[in-house]
Amino acid sequence: MRQSRTLIPTLKETPADADIASHQWLLRAGYIRQNFSGVYSFLPLGKKVLDKIEQVVREEMDKVGANEVLMPALQSADLWRESGRWDKMGPELMRLNDRHEREFVLGPTHEEVATSMIRDEVKSYKKLPLTLYQIQTKFRDERRPRFGLLRGREFIMKDAYSFHDSEQSLEESYQTMYQAYTQIFTRLGLNFRAVIADSGAMGGKDTHEFMALSQVGEDTIAFSDQSDYAANIEMAEVLDCYSFSEQEAKPLELVDTPNQKTMQQVADYLGHALDAGMKSLLYQIDDAFVLVVTRGDHEVNEIKLKNHFAASKVELADEKVSGELLQAGFGSLGPIDVPAEVKVVCDLAVRAMANVTCGANQDDKHYVNVNPKRDLVNVEYADLRFIKAGDPSPDGKGTIEFAEGIEIGQVFKLGSFYAEQLGATYLNDQGKSETMLMGCYGVGVSRTLAAIVEQHHDDKGIVWPVQVAPYQIHLLVLNSKKEEQVQLGEQIYHQLTSAGYDVLYDDRKERAGIKFADSDLIGIPYRVTVGKQADDGIVECKVRMTGEQSERHFKEIIPYLERSLNPN
Amino acid sequence: MRQSRTLIPTLKETPADADIASHQWLLRAGYIRQNFSGVYSFLPLGKKVLDKIEQVVREEMDKVGANEVLMPALQSADLWRESGRWDKMGPELMRLNDRHEREFVLGPTHEEVATSMIRDEVKSYKKLPLTLYQIQTKFRDERRPRFGLLRGREFIMKDAYSFHDSEQSLEESYQTMYQAYTQIFTRLGLNFRAVIADSGAMGGKDTHEFMALSQVGEDTIAFSDQSDYAANIEMAEVLDCYSFSEQEAKPLELVDTPNQKTMQQVADYLGHALDAGMKSLLYQIDDAFVLVVTRGDHEVNEIKLKNHFAASKVELADEKVSGELLQAGFGSLGPIDVPAEVKVVCDLAVRAMANVTCGANQDDKHYVNVNPKRDLVNVEYADLRFIKAGDPSPDGKGTIEFAEGIEIGQVFKLGSFYAEQLGATYLNDQGKSETMLMGCYGVGVSRTLAAIVEQHHDDKGIVWPVQVAPYQIHLLVLNSKKEEQVQLGEQIYHQLTSAGYDVLYDDRKERAGIKFADSDLIGIPYRVTVGKQADDGIVECKVRMTGEQSERHFKEIIPYLERSLNPN
Repeated sequence: MRQSRTLIPTLKETPADADIASHQWLLRAGYIRQNFSGVYSFLPLGKKVLDKIEQVVREEMDKVGANEVLMPALQSADLWRESGRWDKMGPELMRLNDRHEREFVLGPTHEEVATSMIRDEVKSYKKLPLTLYQIQTKFRDERRPRFGLLRGREFIMKDAYSFHDSEQSLEESYQTMYQAYTQIFTRLGLNFRAVIADSGAMGGKDTHEFMALSQVGEDTIAFSDQSDYAANIEMAEVLDCYSFSEQEAKPLELVDTPNQKTMQQVADYLGHALDAGMKSLLYQIDDAFVLVVTRGDHEVNEIKLKNHFAASKVELADEKVSGELLQAGFGSLGPIDVPAEVKVVCDLAVRAMANVTCGANQDDKHYVNVNPKRDLVNVEYADLRFIKAGDPSPDGKGTIEFAEGIEIGQVFKLGSFYAEQLGATYLNDQGKSETMLMGCYGVGVSRTLAAIVEQHHDDKGIVWPVQVAPYQIHLLVLNSKKEEQVQLGEQIYHQLTSAGYDVLYDDRKERAGIKFADSDLIGIPYRVTVGKQADDGIVECKVRMTGEQSERHFKEIIPYLERSLNPN
Repeated sequence: MRQSRTLIPTLKETPADADIASHQWLLRAGYIRQNFSGVYSFLPLGKKVLDKIEQVVREEMDKVGANEVLMPALQSADLWRESGRWDKMGPELMRLNDRHEREFVLGPTHEEVATSMIRDEVKSYKKLPLTLYQIQTKFRDERRPRFGLLRGREFIMKDAYSFHDSEQSLEESYQTMYQAYTQIFTRLGLNFRAVIADSGAMGGKDTHEFMALSQVGEDTIAFSDQSDYAANIEMAEVLDCYSFSEQEAKPLELVDTPNQKTMQQVADYLGHALDAGMKSLLYQIDDAFVLVVTRGDHEVNEIKLKNHFAASKVELADEKVSGELLQAGFGSLGPIDVPAEVKVVCDLAVRAMANVTCGANQDDKHYVNVNPKRDLVNVEYADLRFIKAGDPSPDGKGTIEFAEGIEIGQVFKLGSFYAEQLGATYLNDQGKSETMLMGCYGVGVSRTLAAIVEQHHDDKGIVWPVQVAPYQIHLLVLNSKKEEQVQLGEQIYHQLTSAGYDVLYDDRKERAGIKFADSDLIGIPYRVTVGKQADDGIVECKVRMTGEQSERHFKEIIPYLERSLNPN
């Protein structure tokens, strides 16, 4: 493609409202433009990268036997009433009426449409399992769209739905999709982790999120430095492998701690480390009051608390309640002598502590030399805390590190939720009607594009991995007024395109400096520059990623590219 | 693809609400399903055909240097206010509000978005001409969606927009696109015509519609049997090549025609042919009353009338007005002795008539032996009638035939309309600001799919042209209980897919009759059937289009297919 005949509106300055790297570079290098808040156009370069990503997704989906379809963006509100999501979803669901005042939804996902279609068309176990997928524009009315393509109101997703007649069949599809996703994101050149995620409210069970590691993610991931273990920080289990103290238990003692309220204040006042104190928090969990105890340097993970009690509501109690039930304010709570109406639950780490401090349930007083085994009675132990960097990895391999992540995909066992709501049944091999099981599997296609840029840029622009680059080669003619440069440029352009290479040819009448800067911005993997040595047929070859430069005769370009693009 | 693992829900009966061939066959053969009125899902087979069509469109667009982009479906109402279309368009424009009550449009086309983007990014004549295109889902709230994919509310379009700094540049793009469209529809196996169309209200000038000839179109096309001339029937010029009668003019005579009102009644009563009478109709054209005269067997074309008078309103006058102005009812009007306040305009055919009849502007009376040259004064002649089958073609080559047509594409010189409304200007080579000129070019992608089926089916199902068929080969194993048939089927499936063929493999445990019927419905070009002669390695090959059958050894399938698919 001749650069003079396409639209690549590069910008010299970083747009003021773009606050993350991918948003900045995609704007500056002319890949996308915002139409209005959260809604973007893909310009020619952006569309090309999108196509390459979609092609990888499509190939891997086809490989595992998923069937590509195209369902409509417009969905009937009635279907959403059947599933219950019409009421459950808030203003992020885009709703509209047609000319006859019938209600519609602009699809954010297609569980309802897919399920209703399979309900109507598949009646027998013989046609199961069956997996459908589509690559399509989705809509979600985000309250505050931000981060460019990362959180938009109109975006491109690959969504897939699988239908099953047994848990085992669902499990097989889930594993197959998990592998396919691993393959997809590996091929796209992403540094990612499949993390154990929360299955949320939709009745599902197992779910993994695929997270691209980055500086700017909206989620924190705990991952092992030595294995592929990774989990959303809320979901990461903490192993019960605390080493018990060898110290001899000293006698329990009540001490004054006037006006010392926080863990840190008490520790400083009594002269011990933070991890030699117990932290006690009073929670209201559904209708009960629970004292939750962790080591002083640990944080309560309320998701674990919720799951432990199979509760629907978890929140800190009011300090007034603390005074009524435990006769002390928040600063002096502790697990000793707790009245029966308050349950006590301690994190596993607490059990291994020895001769430590805790609140005495009297204002301005703490116990010291507390030893759980001796001093805590009627107490339950469970894994209740957030994992920390340096903790052992839950799979027993390596230690935990943290990273921010961009969610680029998710695999999800939906189970029977939608099939039950919408009545998707089949006849089993005994002729008996049963409810289908379902899985759903999403890839954020436009978001993946942004994630790739987050991971692949430097201070001059984007640095595309070859497999998703809009072009393989950027051919520059430095001085369009020099006949010999133009002639050699044209000759090389013809030569490369005839050989099947994807070439962006900068034939514009611009200064060399602008051409170099634009080329760095755009980030095509290989650059071939025709300059002063054109008379001798000599060009400069440069690798965007490594900066490696070499001078070559133009006849050697193709063998050089062949070696570089196909190193094996 | 194994048929047991995909979704091809064929139907034995024609769905009651499908009243045209493409809708019936696409439903019956399991290519599409209706989600609700005017909104469809493309099932796996439908999606595959769609992809093939899109690929042809994309290749031809790329070939002429158009740049693929992807603009959003959501468009800001403000842009539509700038162009004036927010008010001009009725309820067919889908409108919605976001959570902040801002107004949006679901794009039916993208003139506004494309123009605003180019306005913002292109400032110099050096970057023109520039053509952008996209293949995208569009929305249009049809009052009565019908004919399956032909008139839906959500559909797929290729839309392109070109931007220019001169009429000549626009003309070049227009011609290039015209050729590309001819190429596209030819490659897709369609019998079509590029017809001269009405440019309507949007300020444009030249426009051609590409019409697929069919039984069910919503438009009638007049085309030459000997050249590529074709026009929408409203637009077809009628040549002024009437042969003047050699008869000697007889004396004008007033005769009684009691109760004879219609042309046919008068002709029968007076004993002459329909084309020996003049038909006179009183029109109100803007604020004037005009008597429009044609030959008795011709029909007034009101579009021509409107254009002739450069009028904005053309309608038949009330019969009361006729009585007041011409002292006669509709049955006895004529162009002789017309008062000055009523203008008389005659179709060119009238001028060549001799010794014919016309109304006398007295009820129940007609003149006979009327000779225009002698008897009609203060009369204007113009081309005012609809062309008829058998008329000479306006390009002088051949005679006119009629066909119904499905509009599958349109090329349109928009001129400066949108650029003016939205302020899309550039600096010319003198540094002076000028308004851009634009063209727009559409292909109805999903509609084209339906048009192909309209032209390519028989009484058993669809008969795909090879280039758009969902698969090249349909492989059938007739009896899945016979080990030797299954083994040979698997072997051939492996052989064909390894050789790069696209194969649908009917491995289902169904009866042979069902498999044959489904195969005819689906309409894949080549069928390979493994049956009773599997033991000897003999299969049956059948060509869907011709019905040609042959028995072959399975090792001869690939050479046979190679010859058939690449006949040259």
